[in-house]
Amino acid sequence: MADAPLDYVSDHLDAFDADLSDFLRIPSISADPAYAADVRRAADWLADHLSQIGFPTVEVRETGGHPVVFAEDRSAGADKPTVLVYGHYDVQPPDPLDLWTSPPFEPVVRDGQLYARGSADDKGQVMMHVKAAEAFYKTGTPLPVNLKLIIEGEEEVGSHHLAPYVDAHQGELACDVIVISDTAMFDQGIPSITVGLRGLAYVQVNLTGPDRDLHSGVYGGGVENPANALAKLIADLHDADHRVTVEGFYDGVVPLKADERAAWAELPFDEAKWLGEIGLTVGKTEKGYTILEATTARPTLDVNGMGSGYQGEGSKTVLPSKAFAKISCRLVPGQDPKDIAQKLRRHFETHLPDTMTMDFVELHGGQPVLMDTDQPAMTAAMDALRETYGRDAYFMREGGSIPVVADLKRILGVDALLLGFGLTADAIHSPDEHFGLDRYHEGIATVVRFWGNYGA
Amino acid sequence: MADAPLDYVSDHLDAFDADLSDFLRIPSISADPAYAADVRRAADWLADHLSQIGFPTVEVRETGGHPVVFAEDRSAGADKPTVLVYGHYDVQPPDPLDLWTSPPFEPVVRDGQLYARGSADDKGQVMMHVKAAEAFYKTGTPLPVNLKLIIEGEEEVGSHHLAPYVDAHQGELACDVIVISDTAMFDQGIPSITVGLRGLAYVQVNLTGPDRDLHSGVYGGGVENPANALAKLIADLHDADHRVTVEGFYDGVVPLKADERAAWAELPFDEAKWLGEIGLTVGKTEKGYTILEATTARPTLDVNGMGSGYQGEGSKTVLPSKAFAKISCRLVPGQDPKDIAQKLRRHFETHLPDTMTMDFVELHGGQPVLMDTDQPAMTAAMDALRETYGRDAYFMREGGSIPVVADLKRILGVDALLLGFGLTADAIHSPDEHFGLDRYHEGIATVVRFWGNYGA
Repeated sequence: MADAPLDYVSDHLDAFDADLSDFLRIPSISADPAYAADVRRAADWLADHLSQIGFPTVEVRETGGHPVVFAEDRSAGADKPTVLVYGHYDVQPPDPLDLWTSPPFEPVVRDGQLYARGSADDKGQVMMHVKAAEAFYKTGTPLPVNLKLIIEGEEEVGSHHLAPYVDAHQGELACDVIVISDTAMFDQGIPSITVGLRGLAYVQVNLTGPDRDLHSGVYGGGVENPANALAKLIADLHDADHRVTVEGFYDGVVPLKADERAAWAELPFDEAKWLGEIGLTVGKTEKGYTILEATTARPTLDVNGMGSGYQGEGSKTVLPSKAFAKISCRLVPGQDPKDIAQKLRRHFETHLPDTMTMDFVELHGGQPVLMDTDQPAMTAAMDALRETYGRDAYFMREGGSIPVVADLKRILGVDALLLGFGLTADAIHSPDEHFGLDRYHEGIATVVRFWGNYGA
Repeated sequence: MADAPLDYVSDHLDAFDADLSDFLRIPSISADPAYAADVRRAADWLADHLSQIGFPTVEVRETGGHPVVFAEDRSAGADKPTVLVYGHYDVQPPDPLDLWTSPPFEPVVRDGQLYARGSADDKGQVMMHVKAAEAFYKTGTPLPVNLKLIIEGEEEVGSHHLAPYVDAHQGELACDVIVISDTAMFDQGIPSITVGLRGLAYVQVNLTGPDRDLHSGVYGGGVENPANALAKLIADLHDADHRVTVEGFYDGVVPLKADERAAWAELPFDEAKWLGEIGLTVGKTEKGYTILEATTARPTLDVNGMGSGYQGEGSKTVLPSKAFAKISCRLVPGQDPKDIAQKLRRHFETHLPDTMTMDFVELHGGQPVLMDTDQPAMTAAMDALRETYGRDAYFMREGGSIPVVADLKRILGVDALLLGFGLTADAIHSPDEHFGLDRYHEGIATVVRFWGNYGA
């Protein structure tokens, strides 16, 4: 249904690569104030580019932080669905620089991979949507859907101004689906859509025993040591099946469906390879679940940090007064961050030895997300992926949280479609970040097809 | 038998206090190179003072670090025992200065306590022996024992040059007993001699799981977390009776004698008061032992420090690659530091999960010490204490280690007599260190009597 745009894509791959490289040359590092002008330059570059390819409305909008690039084209008309594309043009700092094979802001292709900071996260994936639009504009093909783009510049520093901005522009951003290309596909050549994200409940437990650090010779044997007490509390958070022992922790957890598990079991997920990539030979999961299930679709509890007493070189015979742990749970649908934080609090209060006092702090939370796989946009995207890859795509879940997804869903009241073409091997946030040009090209063609299917 | 010296003591208390104050005004802080000249000035002051009161041989000896003050008087003759007095003239840094009620190097008396850094640890206790000698010299009373003094200037920084010095001067330092006044008595008015010191085995356990820090969302649920694994290992080091579970840990431990326990049970040791002084209402001991027994005469295991992952403000969703703990055991007679360190190593190797690799480091060790309570010097000291205080003294043990005691015993081949007049409330190493003038005076009289009894 979109033959002309697809032909245009096939004929302009080199130009698409060149445009992406221009975008990648701008060091739009949002975390470093020294690069503020470059961040704005990236926003301006993107806005200019969107205007040049044909978007009728393009604006660089102020947010109080780095600007948002907004573009829209409502030419498809009120009887066609509206797609809101969210992405980000800012990038992670490139440090440590000496671990890059080539400079992070001088894009270069090696073995079909485009190496540059931001290539996969997220400039390359943003440009898939931009180039798909170009293919319609340059071939004079009417857009099959109404399009809105909101591309922010603060995703790598927490998106602090995005939710307020979206909240203040709800009418303008009204849409039928939010499409985000900022995730990974299952593997090279194996297309997938991310339909679940885990939530987060992050707390800190501060224990105090004696009111000051003590000499371990003079006092050792007579008082409970907060570091030992904390270790016991942490150890008791899991049972022998590596299930979390916090009372009510699994209440309401939506069980995995048999067909989900069956589909995942078919995937060429190599546990030994996955472990080998992080230097391990043995994994550890909740009993009864595969690593793939346990890391994406089951709740967890992990210590993210802990500290007590003397941590310098050598030995100091101190019996510490205090010990703390930062502990977070990844949550799945059916769990609520505030509820889990409360259950953790109650667990620690119940098991706290009478020798300790506790300060329990709820640090951070995020809702788990599970998409409706029956919505029309999802079907349109699955079809588009099948057309591009010649095989069925999978519904996957991702173990991490993308807070902006939950925010956008909540404010705009529509579902999100996570149509990602990254790979976990892309080294995002690390030296030698790269993005496969084949995936970039497949992504553009898939977006063209998705708009066609969705607007049909 | 020593009436003239004792009378002299009674008549010269004010002068003794003034001399001690002069000594205390010198900020002989061995840890701080900026005070190196003051440390030497303290050595010179002490040497001059020893000469002035009548010691025939006094020398300031170089060690490679801060000097040692050596003095001797063999006038008692070969048929009399020889006492070697060990002490130190260096002091701890006085920080934090703003917590001192009066400046640390401007001695002042409040409520009968002399406040100054070094007053109890150890200048005041060294001066008890100096003033006792003065009482013999100034009254023309022959010394009942041969005397040797070795007063070092590096006790607060680890006594690194002392053992080599003593080793190189074994002949000169040959003696029948080493007398050290650098410990506490049981309580005000309740005399005691320290006959046991705990030893130390200090190790560090470094665990590595994944070969780098991981995103807790992406990997959480699939791999064992080193912080959680370490917590479990630490938790399992004690059983429900708070006994150490390391195999063979209690092998060879000399059981407490019934008469020791009975004597200690008579002491006015107030557990609630002891706990209250460190902000606690509940203690924790190995089952079946009082706090006094557990802190002085039973072995322990404590975490001295631990760390893993993110320890800054707020939250970071890292699944750490590494976790470490510094762990030390206080040892009692019958235990050997190297053997216990080996048993700890074996314990961790045996219980290490197959998801972790471990680097086990033996950091530090010290032998426990138990004195022979039947030796003549001990009896002479117990008698002297009874004469001074009008009541029997107790044989106590101390929970800490004094490495120099084991070193001196080993090199010189004789036992040590720990005749201390400090109190745990003296705030040594803390702001407002002080020493009771009554204890200073009682100490001088006791030393006079001890020499008399021992040389009789």
